[in-house]
Amino acid sequence: MKAEILAVGTELLLGDILNTNAQFLAQELANLGIEVYYQTVVGDNPQRLKDTIFHAFSRADLIITTGGLGPTEDDLTKETAAEYFGERLILDERALGRIRKYFDRTGRVMTENNVKQAMVPEKNGIVLYNDNGTAPGIIMEKNGKMIVMLPGPPRETIPMFQNQVKPYLAKKQEFTFVSRILRVAEVGESAMEERVKDIIDAQTNPTIAPYAKDGEAILRITAKARDEEEANRLIDPVAAVLKERLGDAVYGEGETDLETVVAEQLLQKQLTLAVAESCTGGMIASNLVEYPGISAALVEGCVTYSNEAKMHRLGVKAETLEKYGAVSEETAKEMAEGIARTSGADIGVATTGVAGPESSEGKPVGLVYIAIAYKGKTEVYTCHFVGKRNKIRERAAYTALNRLRKVINDEA
Amino acid sequence: MKAEILAVGTELLLGDILNTNAQFLAQELANLGIEVYYQTVVGDNPQRLKDTIFHAFSRADLIITTGGLGPTEDDLTKETAAEYFGERLILDERALGRIRKYFDRTGRVMTENNVKQAMVPEKNGIVLYNDNGTAPGIIMEKNGKMIVMLPGPPRETIPMFQNQVKPYLAKKQEFTFVSRILRVAEVGESAMEERVKDIIDAQTNPTIAPYAKDGEAILRITAKARDEEEANRLIDPVAAVLKERLGDAVYGEGETDLETVVAEQLLQKQLTLAVAESCTGGMIASNLVEYPGISAALVEGCVTYSNEAKMHRLGVKAETLEKYGAVSEETAKEMAEGIARTSGADIGVATTGVAGPESSEGKPVGLVYIAIAYKGKTEVYTCHFVGKRNKIRERAAYTALNRLRKVINDEA
Repeated sequence: MKAEILAVGTELLLGDILNTNAQFLAQELANLGIEVYYQTVVGDNPQRLKDTIFHAFSRADLIITTGGLGPTEDDLTKETAAEYFGERLILDERALGRIRKYFDRTGRVMTENNVKQAMVPEKNGIVLYNDNGTAPGIIMEKNGKMIVMLPGPPRETIPMFQNQVKPYLAKKQEFTFVSRILRVAEVGESAMEERVKDIIDAQTNPTIAPYAKDGEAILRITAKARDEEEANRLIDPVAAVLKERLGDAVYGEGETDLETVVAEQLLQKQLTLAVAESCTGGMIASNLVEYPGISAALVEGCVTYSNEAKMHRLGVKAETLEKYGAVSEETAKEMAEGIARTSGADIGVATTGVAGPESSEGKPVGLVYIAIAYKGKTEVYTCHFVGKRNKIRERAAYTALNRLRKVINDEA
Repeated sequence: MKAEILAVGTELLLGDILNTNAQFLAQELANLGIEVYYQTVVGDNPQRLKDTIFHAFSRADLIITTGGLGPTEDDLTKETAAEYFGERLILDERALGRIRKYFDRTGRVMTENNVKQAMVPEKNGIVLYNDNGTAPGIIMEKNGKMIVMLPGPPRETIPMFQNQVKPYLAKKQEFTFVSRILRVAEVGESAMEERVKDIIDAQTNPTIAPYAKDGEAILRITAKARDEEEANRLIDPVAAVLKERLGDAVYGEGETDLETVVAEQLLQKQLTLAVAESCTGGMIASNLVEYPGISAALVEGCVTYSNEAKMHRLGVKAETLEKYGAVSEETAKEMAEGIARTSGADIGVATTGVAGPESSEGKPVGLVYIAIAYKGKTEVYTCHFVGKRNKIRERAAYTALNRLRKVINDEA
């Protein structure tokens, strides 16, 4: 099956919003084994929308649209598709009832033009009811051509696709594509690729693709199979070999992140943590607090940006600051030990460094010391990060959490 | 001039990357007064790329492409455009020299296929040298049709467009469009629109467009004029009227954010700040630390997530916690006063609330108290935020900074 992704909306053509739906749908269709040759964006213009839909059907079997299902006269996706399929639109009482209920629930007043949103094809149509907004989606299908029309806001598009469209499309595909992701910390994409290149080259099903995302290296293992169970049977041994090769650089699998992994590790081992942050300025604590239930592990954090705060909150010695500077191995060590001692936590983590843009104490931008005090021992890591101020802070916060993960792992 | 934006790259069709270039170019072209009717994404496939370029030129005068200028055989944007224009590509020694230098500078080895990147049109072409990568961009122009070919990585695309393409296109436009943005805090998009609707309706040049971005309401004032000076003369009085109407809800103009405005306010007034965060968990401090030089104002922060930390770091009374709970007006007040007192800062800001997903102390998810202690007075604000855990934390951090901005403003 060949598909095209079509976003409808002048706000995309003006650059007011970013077309994240296209990326989401592209990934989902790739996983379903449906080839996408084109993505298009067109404005709320009747003739151009019609040209685009007719042109897309001249080269594809399936069009997935987002947007243009709103209540105003500008919103014409459904009407144009109906024209292509030679269908009449009629009022769907159930859809209208749901729209009325949605307005009641959100305490807003429904206007007459919302009735337009409840119009659905008389024949050859499937209504996709919308739990997160007013516009129902529609599937229309005839003579080997299919259009799936989804609303524009991602919080409506994504669940509607995942819950209603994906199972529908999967049934039409002979094969399914299942992916599993291995997440790798503190190893670059190309270094990671080099370490597992022979494994990648030896594989055809599943395939292994290395890539980089949000500053992390990722391995995506994708199997083509008749069902999910068969796919997982193909993936399991390959994932095991990759994990053995990469060792503890692999911190997690699937939809997770480093904060979640560390939070779960702390809670599971009933360890308590306190954080003293200079250059990261609260970022480590804030990232951990994203995890609900972290209060059982995270005792407290101190943002000791000034020397005074380092001394009076953490008990860093004035001589240390004077002799070695605020950005030094020695200060990092006293910070980590200080926060552990004053908070009574099992583990103390500290950061101090030069985030830039100016160097400080004659030390270069990007130099960051990370200290972890645990079980009477303190490890200090000297790191050099590149990038702008915020990138350096992010890398430092990320690296601190990853070293913490390893320290906890190693003692297990 | 009618334009189309065309991204070339299979990685976009697979959803591996997000097409941020399309949004950037859409905004830039709108500002230049160039209409964009379509955006397209096509893969690295010779026939489909050719079809797309020829089809786009059947309806547009200008095509801006991103991607497909790499060194491999897959990269065919330049070759396809040359075919459309009936041009021959020849080696540009200067481009080749720059590519060699780029490899030297980044310490990598240049391979033979990079020579392909230095091929440029023999006639009717302008070479756009690339300061941030190896692929030069190209402008080709003939018989009223123009193609602008840019590299794919945004850190190459954006400066090349801004420094070389934008001035070139601006010269061809009779009018320029200049926008100014007013940033509004803690007022929703529709409430803001209602307050200034009569001003919006009375305006034709400049126009005023309200929209929402990253949780903020924004007013964009756009003037059509012969040059920037004339545009600014048109915008100035309209901006003044809007700002008068919206009062201190307008926190800034143009490319700024609330953190920057608050940081500059603190530094300018030589005020010092300390922050005690419970539910925001370091987010306020971390956001402020994004501003270089904040160390002169931000004395310290405490992430007092546990009751113990609230007591021993900030001196919150055990009775207060017991009687009113950790999430209470009284605790917020003592936290703000405690952090100001123990740090010696002029201002103490505190947050305590229920970020969810579970309610706590019988208090509902989204309830957050924000306290600001300044000049012997402490204001406590009771807020109800909706959304998921992280959204609630972000809204709380944002609101705390905005209230701080107002408190400092009011005493001026």
